[in-house]
Amino acid sequence: MLNLDFHPSGRHFLQIPGPSPVPDRILRAMSLPTIDHRGPEFGALGREILDKVKKVFKTRNPVIIYPASGTGAWEAALINTLSPGDRVLMFETGHFATLWHQMARRLGLEPEFIGLPGYEGWRHGVQAEMIEARLKEDGDHRIKAVCVVHNETSTGVTSDIAAVRRAIDAAGHPALLLVDTISGLASADYRHDEWGVDVTISGSQKGLMLPPGISFNAVSDKALAASREAMLPKSFWAWDEIIETNRNGYWPYTPSTNLLYGLNESLDMLLDEGLDHVLARHRRWAAGVRAAVEAWGLEIQCLDPAVYSPVLTGVVMPEGVDADAVRKIIYERFDLSLGAGLGKAKGRMFRIGHLGDCNDLTLIATLGGCEAGMKLAGIELESSGVTAALDYFAHHTLEDVK
Amino acid sequence: MLNLDFHPSGRHFLQIPGPSPVPDRILRAMSLPTIDHRGPEFGALGREILDKVKKVFKTRNPVIIYPASGTGAWEAALINTLSPGDRVLMFETGHFATLWHQMARRLGLEPEFIGLPGYEGWRHGVQAEMIEARLKEDGDHRIKAVCVVHNETSTGVTSDIAAVRRAIDAAGHPALLLVDTISGLASADYRHDEWGVDVTISGSQKGLMLPPGISFNAVSDKALAASREAMLPKSFWAWDEIIETNRNGYWPYTPSTNLLYGLNESLDMLLDEGLDHVLARHRRWAAGVRAAVEAWGLEIQCLDPAVYSPVLTGVVMPEGVDADAVRKIIYERFDLSLGAGLGKAKGRMFRIGHLGDCNDLTLIATLGGCEAGMKLAGIELESSGVTAALDYFAHHTLEDVK
Amino acid sequence: MLNLDFHPSGRHFLQIPGPSPVPDRILRAMSLPTIDHRGPEFGALGREILDKVKKVFKTRNPVIIYPASGTGAWEAALINTLSPGDRVLMFETGHFATLWHQMARRLGLEPEFIGLPGYEGWRHGVQAEMIEARLKEDGDHRIKAVCVVHNETSTGVTSDIAAVRRAIDAAGHPALLLVDTISGLASADYRHDEWGVDVTISGSQKGLMLPPGISFNAVSDKALAASREAMLPKSFWAWDEIIETNRNGYWPYTPSTNLLYGLNESLDMLLDEGLDHVLARHRRWAAGVRAAVEAWGLEIQCLDPAVYSPVLTGVVMPEGVDADAVRKIIYERFDLSLGAGLGKAKGRMFRIGHLGDCNDLTLIATLGGCEAGMKLAGIELESSGVTAALDYFAHHTLEDVK
Amino acid sequence: MLNLDFHPSGRHFLQIPGPSPVPDRILRAMSLPTIDHRGPEFGALGREILDKVKKVFKTRNPVIIYPASGTGAWEAALINTLSPGDRVLMFETGHFATLWHQMARRLGLEPEFIGLPGYEGWRHGVQAEMIEARLKEDGDHRIKAVCVVHNETSTGVTSDIAAVRRAIDAAGHPALLLVDTISGLASADYRHDEWGVDVTISGSQKGLMLPPGISFNAVSDKALAASREAMLPKSFWAWDEIIETNRNGYWPYTPSTNLLYGLNESLDMLLDEGLDHVLARHRRWAAGVRAAVEAWGLEIQCLDPAVYSPVLTGVVMPEGVDADAVRKIIYERFDLSLGAGLGKAKGRMFRIGHLGDCNDLTLIATLGGCEAGMKLAGIELESSGVTAALDYFAHHTLEDVK
Repeated sequence: MLNLDFHPSGRHFLQIPGPSPVPDRILRAMSLPTIDHRGPEFGALGREILDKVKKVFKTRNPVIIYPASGTGAWEAALINTLSPGDRVLMFETGHFATLWHQMARRLGLEPEFIGLPGYEGWRHGVQAEMIEARLKEDGDHRIKAVCVVHNETSTGVTSDIAAVRRAIDAAGHPALLLVDTISGLASADYRHDEWGVDVTISGSQKGLMLPPGISFNAVSDKALAASREAMLPKSFWAWDEIIETNRNGYWPYTPSTNLLYGLNESLDMLLDEGLDHVLARHRRWAAGVRAAVEAWGLEIQCLDPAVYSPVLTGVVMPEGVDADAVRKIIYERFDLSLGAGLGKAKGRMFRIGHLGDCNDLTLIATLGGCEAGMKLAGIELESSGVTAALDYFAHHTLEDVK
Repeated sequence: MLNLDFHPSGRHFLQIPGPSPVPDRILRAMSLPTIDHRGPEFGALGREILDKVKKVFKTRNPVIIYPASGTGAWEAALINTLSPGDRVLMFETGHFATLWHQMARRLGLEPEFIGLPGYEGWRHGVQAEMIEARLKEDGDHRIKAVCVVHNETSTGVTSDIAAVRRAIDAAGHPALLLVDTISGLASADYRHDEWGVDVTISGSQKGLMLPPGISFNAVSDKALAASREAMLPKSFWAWDEIIETNRNGYWPYTPSTNLLYGLNESLDMLLDEGLDHVLARHRRWAAGVRAAVEAWGLEIQCLDPAVYSPVLTGVVMPEGVDADAVRKIIYERFDLSLGAGLGKAKGRMFRIGHLGDCNDLTLIATLGGCEAGMKLAGIELESSGVTAALDYFAHHTLEDVK
Repeated sequence: MLNLDFHPSGRHFLQIPGPSPVPDRILRAMSLPTIDHRGPEFGALGREILDKVKKVFKTRNPVIIYPASGTGAWEAALINTLSPGDRVLMFETGHFATLWHQMARRLGLEPEFIGLPGYEGWRHGVQAEMIEARLKEDGDHRIKAVCVVHNETSTGVTSDIAAVRRAIDAAGHPALLLVDTISGLASADYRHDEWGVDVTISGSQKGLMLPPGISFNAVSDKALAASREAMLPKSFWAWDEIIETNRNGYWPYTPSTNLLYGLNESLDMLLDEGLDHVLARHRRWAAGVRAAVEAWGLEIQCLDPAVYSPVLTGVVMPEGVDADAVRKIIYERFDLSLGAGLGKAKGRMFRIGHLGDCNDLTLIATLGGCEAGMKLAGIELESSGVTAALDYFAHHTLEDVK
Repeated sequence: MLNLDFHPSGRHFLQIPGPSPVPDRILRAMSLPTIDHRGPEFGALGREILDKVKKVFKTRNPVIIYPASGTGAWEAALINTLSPGDRVLMFETGHFATLWHQMARRLGLEPEFIGLPGYEGWRHGVQAEMIEARLKEDGDHRIKAVCVVHNETSTGVTSDIAAVRRAIDAAGHPALLLVDTISGLASADYRHDEWGVDVTISGSQKGLMLPPGISFNAVSDKALAASREAMLPKSFWAWDEIIETNRNGYWPYTPSTNLLYGLNESLDMLLDEGLDHVLARHRRWAAGVRAAVEAWGLEIQCLDPAVYSPVLTGVVMPEGVDADAVRKIIYERFDLSLGAGLGKAKGRMFRIGHLGDCNDLTLIATLGGCEAGMKLAGIELESSGVTAALDYFAHHTLEDVK
């Protein structure tokens, strides 16, 4: 039997910004017996899931569910809407935007990557005015799509997607708007229809609190129209056949049955609680964690309070401190996993996830592990972050962050 | 809480040819907490899985594991090795061969689909001599790959892959050999290296006894070389980056952590039991099920005893009987799911899966449900298939089918 | 990790007359985290369980739930109502009646054990007229209680409890009526209040489909009054303190929290389905199993059709056949557990349980294993019992057994 | 489906001194299918468990496992060794000693209850010299047993059992020594044989990390001899029949199968880790928690550092503060359960459990919840206990507490 309990006692604290801690209720749902994906029960389940999932994306249009992890949904969004050699405007918010840019190039597109310069550039959100300016230059509309990351998992910055929409409209440009909210959905406010997004990409292992393995494309009518003209070869990812068989609650090929059980449970949990309540929980947690970082006298990775992420917080290490060495101490001494600095942020910071199956005390434990680990690593802290967060949590309710 | 127990009491009998019944031991393994896919435990687990999985494919080369269901692995095999417009020779063994052929066309390849004619053609295996003849005509080697299905899930025919290899060699043709054994692996004898297969495609939800959601490409050196020249756009499916990060037990993007827990458990179960023992179990079950079909006086879908599938058996209905109506009675009265006839076999037959978490009595129950349901549907049966299978099981051990 | 899967593949068939196969839904409920048995959630859960459980016993009076297995509830019934040296009239229906009689003696009571003679005596139910006759002789009412087993698990005989009540009343005797329905509750018709039972004893691991570990005393007002005078020393088993703390949903000492989770789930399953439906299921299963025994040309242990058990069926072996040797073959070859003959029936018969998480095909599998195993043991059977049961199940619905 | 998750997100912190948090590994083991308790697998499992459990009690003699919760094992210890009217010397360490004393009276014994006076008396351990003095007065040996609680769950005091043994021996008195270590076993050092204990009572839901439902009597030869003469009526609890059937790994009546699966897993976890390591873990946690209480400027319930419990710590509230009101705030605001003050300590203190599936950060979370909750309740704290405990944990390894 598999043993992943490397510490003799107690639960591991998984406080990376995804995969997030999965509630037992979801793990139990996933352990139901696999059923016939062509049988009547499955169809009923499929229809229910496909209906409920729209509410989380805030769309009336179809949401495609792939039996593949999130990176696949990135590929699906590009492949369904674009043709070889198409120009795509992508904004560099951080490491995941960079990876998506690399994917676009590998798929034979011509991505243009704009952004603020250097490591410091990764400490801000999408600059909508830069997008607007670039689109205005593109008089013959060679740019077919604008691609942005909503919640940049590598930095803890949640960009303003409505502003990007306004920028595109202000430029009078017909480009599609493709948005990655893999780590934002169901933790940060997100509105597919209202914000005029054409393709929203998401995944299971973050705010939906599932293990990794399924991913999503929410689509606009304009994206669906584009998919009929798009020339990149596609079969597994093709929207049309999936949408067609989804009408009866089925998929054209074998779906991830047990992960769908988990998704159904997750959707019930989120919708029963109420999405507004869920989002407020995350905002409040984020505020508590930032109170700790401020008490420590350390910098938050995101420099613009307007775009602080409710999902994760990047904690910048003092000059000369190797963040990965600090993470290692914390992991080994306190059975706590934190996110590493990635790409341009490598070694400079670590990331605290505050999503998934958490509560105030889970985060107090997490901040405790960070605080003790940083001290053991020789970092001088101004004051106790744990007690600052405790004070924050004691004196702020969800009402305070609405 | 999700309730999939539509009958008030007892376990559903899932005897379709996949997804197969998942052992509780695997469901339990899958319910372990999701861990950090960048952490040290994950790397150790990844290395162990990647090593053990080779033994099931009988290969010394890498096996790529995708966080995507089986259809994705079909696409991966084509995309990694071929270029737009490439000619591909595919053999029509049944419905799944037909679907793969459609995929090849959608991806911009030029598949040529050969086979025996009509519905009757689906009652035999791959005709290696037809492949040899066609390749010999292809003097300028425009055909880049030969694609065959090992265990055709829609018919219950397990083709002779070694013979296909010999046919290609006899034609002196450099085409790659791509084989789908999604439903054959770990239930039917399969030897990637020995049989000279270039890409083997498989999935999790059949002989590996997992829920659907992960899939495989086993590759030859020749296939790896081809992948460096192949021009179909690829990113998510690209072998190179995965093989590279697999060296340390990781994946370039988030893998299906909890399904990998299940895979690790499955591999332990299969390898601890011994693959030869596992394969003999399936052969013996298949023989018992065929004894029942013969006692009923019905035809087996596969007409060639040399290629009877050890994984499933197609049962042909008498003229004028709608197989799907029979299946519906069986499902509703006996809480038993059987496979439908697909494509050219639609309505003509049903399929009994004998794989996954089964034993003799599970199959007796299954045959009992079939027998009573066929009688309720008004089918005249020559004699009792249940008692014939009981006799077979009582008097044959694994030794008898080795 | 514990491994109880001694066969390499498939689920074990547990067809003993208890512990019965536990539905996965109940196992999942039992795996919820243990909570504080003094906290508010526990009180709410306790009140709900204590209320629902009365419906299964068909009583308006309290039902005491012990964190102890069924034998403990036997002791509790005696200890709460009787005093040292009290005379008790017990009827010998089989092995479990015999064990209860031994217990009464060990506890310092003076049990009188009546019944029909010999092994043949175990093939009938309680003879109410014998009880009536004995009570009429007891002019000075030295007999304080009449103890009978409702569903005798060792023989498959379900006695007529209402007749026993009428017998006591006809004798004008004040003795308490104590009834063991450990294996009858929720599978066979049972009515605590209507039948005038004073103490009903039951357990978790039969019709309630839980693992063993909790047990029950349902009590009448007369029993409660008796408990205030009874002089056997008691503390753990004492009703008064339990009933008192139960008012708020708690217990005076730590209850079996996770088994109570399972009980709550079981009660929901039974009451949602409807007890009448549950009982009809068991009657229909029993009729199907008896059809098989008759087709085999073997004798059913119970000789009186009016008291055939809906829970289990005893199958008598032909002269000279060792039933335990037959059971061993069936167990080893077919991964099927049957009940042994006990006491006077040892080696003469085996018992098929048809309760718990079963359905028609589970029983077909079971009968298949029995049939093949008996043949392997050299027993000549008249005809196939499996096909006889299949015919029965195919042509009889629950309506037919109401 | 049962829903016990009253808070919308995150795991409840169950930090009462038992039931303790159950490791998922044990919950998974308990969810294995119930098997035949008369079958060969069960016998093998039974023998293995009965052998391993002796190592935890540190005895070579039999350990009786009851399918009943801990209070039953108290009763069993008295009933097996004593006769009606026997005099028993019991020491009042706290609430549980008091309850045991009440039980002895209810069972018809004549217990004598000695101890230090008043609430203050509950802040110390067993006074061995008081026992010695009393036994010396008992020249005609009317006292048949001395009963003491090893780890008094209501106060957090772990008495010196070896000293009690020495006291009895010094008095030259033949009384049996009965010790309750329900909450001490597998968390606090305990040695049945070495300390000359005659009956050790324990339960499943504390250091063994199981749900409640099974309990234990470890016995000496002298206790076994006494049980043959003891006259209290006994059947369910009787040692002799259990020990006899245990020889083959079975029980005379249905055992708690699924809890035994859990026990087997627990024993593997404890013995694989090593008992010394387990005990050191608890000592270190206790020291960290006490560092917090000291930093807060509050009193620890136990006044004698030599008998601080490694299992739980009682925290005394300042004069005028209702401890239960504080607990309620902590429960409602922070999803954290603490133990209430019981009996003489009611309302004066709360108890923090540090046992079961815990680690350093679980306790940091717990102390955080306590600290914030006490502040919300208006209690003035001298300094932060959370940071004091963090410092302790950061700078002390298991070596430091050996």
